[in-house]
Amino acid sequence: MSIVDIKANGSVGIVKTEYFTFAIPPDKFVLESGEELSPVTIAYETYGVLTPERDNAILVCHALSGSAHAAGFHSESDSKPGWWDPMIGPGKALDTNKYFVVCSNVIGGCSGSTGPGSINPKTGKPYGLDFPFVTIRDMVRAQIELMKHLKISQWLCVIGGSMGGMQALEWAVNFPDLIKSAVVISAPPKSDAQQIAFHAVGRHAIFSDPKFSSGNYYDTAQPANGLAVARMLSHITYLSEDSMKQKFGRRLQNESNFKYSVDKEFSVESYLEYQGEKFVNRFDANSYLYITKAIDYFDISRGYANLDEALKNVKAKVLVISFTSDWLYPPRESKKLAFALARQGKNVSYCNINSPYGHDSFLIDYEKMSQLVSGFIKHTYTPGRICPHCYAPEKEIIAGPRIVIPNSIFSSKRIDFDLIVDLIEPNSKVLDLGCGTGSLLCRLEREKQVKGLGIEINEDYIISAVNCGLPVVQADIDEGLSELPEKCFDYVILSMTLQVVKKPALILKEITRIGKKCIVSFPNFGHWRVRTQLLLKGISPVTENLPYTWYDSPNRHFLTLKDFRNLCKSLGIKILKEVPLTKNGETKILPNLFSEEVLYLIANG
Amino acid sequence: MSIVDIKANGSVGIVKTEYFTFAIPPDKFVLESGEELSPVTIAYETYGVLTPERDNAILVCHALSGSAHAAGFHSESDSKPGWWDPMIGPGKALDTNKYFVVCSNVIGGCSGSTGPGSINPKTGKPYGLDFPFVTIRDMVRAQIELMKHLKISQWLCVIGGSMGGMQALEWAVNFPDLIKSAVVISAPPKSDAQQIAFHAVGRHAIFSDPKFSSGNYYDTAQPANGLAVARMLSHITYLSEDSMKQKFGRRLQNESNFKYSVDKEFSVESYLEYQGEKFVNRFDANSYLYITKAIDYFDISRGYANLDEALKNVKAKVLVISFTSDWLYPPRESKKLAFALARQGKNVSYCNINSPYGHDSFLIDYEKMSQLVSGFIKHTYTPGRICPHCYAPEKEIIAGPRIVIPNSIFSSKRIDFDLIVDLIEPNSKVLDLGCGTGSLLCRLEREKQVKGLGIEINEDYIISAVNCGLPVVQADIDEGLSELPEKCFDYVILSMTLQVVKKPALILKEITRIGKKCIVSFPNFGHWRVRTQLLLKGISPVTENLPYTWYDSPNRHFLTLKDFRNLCKSLGIKILKEVPLTKNGETKILPNLFSEEVLYLIANG
Repeated sequence: MSIVDIKANGSVGIVKTEYFTFAIPPDKFVLESGEELSPVTIAYETYGVLTPERDNAILVCHALSGSAHAAGFHSESDSKPGWWDPMIGPGKALDTNKYFVVCSNVIGGCSGSTGPGSINPKTGKPYGLDFPFVTIRDMVRAQIELMKHLKISQWLCVIGGSMGGMQALEWAVNFPDLIKSAVVISAPPKSDAQQIAFHAVGRHAIFSDPKFSSGNYYDTAQPANGLAVARMLSHITYLSEDSMKQKFGRRLQNESNFKYSVDKEFSVESYLEYQGEKFVNRFDANSYLYITKAIDYFDISRGYANLDEALKNVKAKVLVISFTSDWLYPPRESKKLAFALARQGKNVSYCNINSPYGHDSFLIDYEKMSQLVSGFIKHTYTPGRICPHCYAPEKEIIAGPRIVIPNSIFSSKRIDFDLIVDLIEPNSKVLDLGCGTGSLLCRLEREKQVKGLGIEINEDYIISAVNCGLPVVQADIDEGLSELPEKCFDYVILSMTLQVVKKPALILKEITRIGKKCIVSFPNFGHWRVRTQLLLKGISPVTENLPYTWYDSPNRHFLTLKDFRNLCKSLGIKILKEVPLTKNGETKILPNLFSEEVLYLIANG
Repeated sequence: MSIVDIKANGSVGIVKTEYFTFAIPPDKFVLESGEELSPVTIAYETYGVLTPERDNAILVCHALSGSAHAAGFHSESDSKPGWWDPMIGPGKALDTNKYFVVCSNVIGGCSGSTGPGSINPKTGKPYGLDFPFVTIRDMVRAQIELMKHLKISQWLCVIGGSMGGMQALEWAVNFPDLIKSAVVISAPPKSDAQQIAFHAVGRHAIFSDPKFSSGNYYDTAQPANGLAVARMLSHITYLSEDSMKQKFGRRLQNESNFKYSVDKEFSVESYLEYQGEKFVNRFDANSYLYITKAIDYFDISRGYANLDEALKNVKAKVLVISFTSDWLYPPRESKKLAFALARQGKNVSYCNINSPYGHDSFLIDYEKMSQLVSGFIKHTYTPGRICPHCYAPEKEIIAGPRIVIPNSIFSSKRIDFDLIVDLIEPNSKVLDLGCGTGSLLCRLEREKQVKGLGIEINEDYIISAVNCGLPVVQADIDEGLSELPEKCFDYVILSMTLQVVKKPALILKEITRIGKKCIVSFPNFGHWRVRTQLLLKGISPVTENLPYTWYDSPNRHFLTLKDFRNLCKSLGIKILKEVPLTKNGETKILPNLFSEEVLYLIANG
C-alpha cells in the first residue's frame, strides 16, 4: 500500500515515534510511592496539527499492552497500523483534520518510555525489580511533563479504554484544570477482586518461572513461559464467552478426530498459545508485573472519603462508555461511575454499547463508539453551534442515526413542550426521564439556560443526544432511580412515559423524592372516545392518542385524570397544576372526558 | 465431635473408603481410545442400606477435584466431612434412611482409583503420561463394573454437579436401561471454547513447569508451581464476580497501606495462593491434565448427528439444575439441554436456582437444590403416591414452599379447570404454559392420563411442581418458544396468562405452531362492570376479575372477546370453541358484555 493509498483510506500515513526526556539529573521525578526516577523518557506520537490557539489537542491513553503507536504506519512496508487506527485519522472520530492527537507510552512500560527494562543510571544495568513502583497517577503526571513540553495548557479531551480509561478518569479527578473533557471507555472507577485475582494468577505464573530470576533476566532470556501463561489467561478475559464460541467452538486445529492425549489440539488452545508467544516477543515480563499491579492499585476514590467526594473535583465534561458483553469490567461499574458524576451535578453522558466482543470491544467495534466520541468532542470544541437535531439542519450534518420518535398528539408541533418550557424557571436544574433524542432538553437549555440531564434507555437516542451536546445517561427507569439523592433537581420531567413504566407508583415516589417539582404528562384513558369505543363497540380502544391495538401496545397502564389524582392523594403528592390538553391546547371543560393528554406539575406534599 | 453428635446432626457418621479391582490380567478394560487398562481399581464409599429388592441405589458422581468421600467422616478426629455432606445423610435430600448412596472416584483420578499416579504393571513404576487416555464415558463404564460388583441392576438415580453432571448425562444417553433417573447439575451438554481455554491455560502452566519432566516426576517432586497456577485460575472461574467482591473486595491482607511493590498484598491474592498450595498437597498434576482434557472432550452429542439425536436414547426421568450466577457453565446451556430433552418428549424438569455463588453454588447453596432433588427422587422411587399438593395432604408432607397462586374468578373451585379437563382427549401430550405449581397438569395426569409438560418462570412454583412429580421447565414465555418444534403437543394450554405476556400476538402464533389444538383463557375486559366503571366513574376499572388498580397491575394487555376474535382472524387462527364464563359457569347471553372470563379452543387455520 503506497502512502497515497494509505491517505485515501483515511489514515494519518507514515508516522514516527518521538522521545522526550525530563527529570534529567540533578532533577528528579518523585513518584507517588515517594521513590524517585531520573531521568525519565516518554515515547510519543502525534497526528494532525496543533492550532495557533493550541486548543485542539487530544491525548489518547493506551491500555495494558499498548504503546505510543496509536495510528498510521511506521514505514511504507509496515502492514499493521497503530492500535487505535480506526479511531484516529482524517474524518475519523478523532479527526486529524481538526484535532492534534497525542499518544504516549506509559512509564513502567516497555515500548520506549522509561520502565524496568531501561538502564538504571546507578548501576549501568537494566532496573529489573529495582525500578520504582508507578501508579496510574504517576503515568498521568509523566504525561503532564510531556504536555508542558508540547506547550499545551489544556487538553481538549483525554480519552482511553481499559487502563487508558483509568488514566482519563485520573486526569478528570486529580488534574481538573488541565482537561476540558474526558472519555472513559471500558474502565471501572476501581479494580475489584476478580480483576485483581486474574492479574495475581498471571503474576504468580511469571514469578514461578525459573527464568524470572527475581527480575534480573535481561542478560539471559525473559520468563517467557510465565509471561505467556499470564497473557493467555488475560486474553480469555478480553473476549466474551459468546465470541469465543462463535470464533472457535469445539473445532480441532489439525485433526478430524481426537488424539486421546493431553496435548493441545483444540483451535482455541492453539490460538491462545499463539497469542502468548506473540506477546512474549514484544513485551517485557517486568513491565507486565508493574503495570498489572498499577491497575490493581487503581481506585479513583483513594485519598478521598468515597467516590462521590473524589468526583467533586471534576470540571471536565465526561463521556462514559461501556460494552454490554464486557465481563472483565462489567458495564454496571461504568454506570455507577456515570451516576456518581450525575449526583455531583457534573456534565456526564453514559452509553452501554451493545456489542458481542467482550472487553476487547473498544478495539474492535468502532461504529457507535465513533459516533459518540466524535459528537462529544465536536460539541466540546464548538459548544455554541446550533444543533441540527433540534432545529432544521444548517451547515453541518451530525453523525449518528436519524430518529423519529413516535410522539403524543403533538407529532408536528409539541404544544406540551411549549407548556413544559413555560413552567420551568430559568437556570434551574432539570432531569428529563425518557428524554429520547433530547429535543426537549435542548430547547430548555437554549430557552431557559437550564442545567439539564437526560435519562434514556435507547442507545441510538443517546448517540443522537450526545451529538446534540446534551448530557444523557443510559438507564432503565424501571430499575429505579435510587442512585440519585433527594431534591437534587429543581424539576424532574416524565413526559408521556408514566403509562409504559412497570411500577408507576414507585416512579412517582422516586421523582418527587429527587425533584423539588415534577412535571408528568400522559395520555388520558378517560377520554370520551376511549370510553365509548369500549362501551359501544366492546373492543379495546384505539384512538389517535392511544394508537396501538391491545396486543402490540408498549403501554402497560391505562389511567385517567381521576386515577392519577387518586394515586397522588394516596402517595401524599401535591398537585400544583393540572393542564388537560387537546390537540388545540389546554381545555377546561370536563377534562377527564375531553382531554386527550394531560400535564401535571406535582411535588412532595 | 463424638459419633453420637455426628449422627444427631444428620450425618452418616464414620465411613470408610472401599476398593474394588476388576480387569485383572489377563482380563482388560478397553477404553474409548482403544487403549487398554489392566487391572483397574475403583475407590468407593457407600452410605445407607440397599433394600432386598436392590432398587434404592443412588450413584453420586464427583467433579474435577472430588473423590469417593462424599459424606461423613473418616475418623472421630476428622474435622472435615465428605465433599457433599449437606446432601447425603439421614433426612437429607439423598436420604440414607431410605436410599443406598454410592460414590466412586473416577478412573484417571488420584484419590484411590487407578490413574496416572498408579503403578504401571509393565514397568513397576507410576504410569505418568503412559497412562491411557480416559473419557467421561470411560469413567462411567468403570462405574458400571462397580455396579455389577454391588449387584445393582439399575440405579434409582445418578446425580452429580459439574463433571459429575456430565457423567450423569452420559449415563442417561449411553446407558439408558441402567438408570431410572438422572440429575444433571451445573453441567452443559458439551464443553465449549471458553471452558476449554481456561483448562488449556492451566495445562500450559503445568507443562511449562520444569519439574513436570514430561510427567515423570513421581521420584522427585510434582510440578507444584504449574499445578498451583492452574488451580488458582480455575478457582476464579468457580466463583462469581459478585461473590469475590463481597468476600474480598480490595482488602489488603496484612498492610493498611500499599507496599508499592509487585509482591502479593491483596487478600484475594493470598486466598488464591492458599487455594493453590492446598490443592497441590492433595492432587496429582498428571490427573489434573487427564481429567481436564476428559472434560474438554465431553460432548454428549459426539457420535450422534446432533444433541437431539443423542437424547433420543434417554429413558430416565431427568432433572436439570443450574445456578443463575454460574458463568463457567452458563445456565442457558442447561436450559438448552432441558428443551432438547423436552423436544424429544422426555420427562424433564429444569430449574435455574437463584444463587450468588457462581459455579461453586452446587457445593454451597443447598436449600432449593435439596428441595428439588429430594422431591424428584422421592417421586421417582414411589411414583404412584397421591400428591398432597393437588389433593388434601394425606400421610406425607411434601418438601418445598407452600404457594397460593392468585387465581381467576374461580379461586376456590376452578370451573375453568373442569372445562379444560373436559376438552382434552385422554392420553394426549399437553403443554401447560405458566403452569404455576402444576395443579392443572396434575389433574390432567390423573384424570386423563396425559403426558404433560409445564413451563413456568417462578423457581418456587417449579420446586412445588417437581415435588408433585410433574415435569416442569423453567423459562420465560416472553422470550419465545422457538426451542419447541411444530405440532409437538396435542394441546397447548395458556390459562389466564395472555394478558400478562409482552407480545400476545407472537405467543398466539407460537402456541398454534407448537400445539395441534390450544386452549386459551383470559379475563374479559369487555365485561359490563368494566365498561361502566370507565364510562360513568372515569377511572381505570377495578373488578373482582381485574382486581388490580391501574398502577400495580401485572396485566399488560386489556382485551375483550371481540378483540381476541379479531386478532385470531388476522393471524389465520381458527376458533373451534368459545366458552364465556361467569362465576357460575358458562354463559350464553351477550358474552362480550356478561362473561368475566373466557376460554377458547383454537388451532392453526
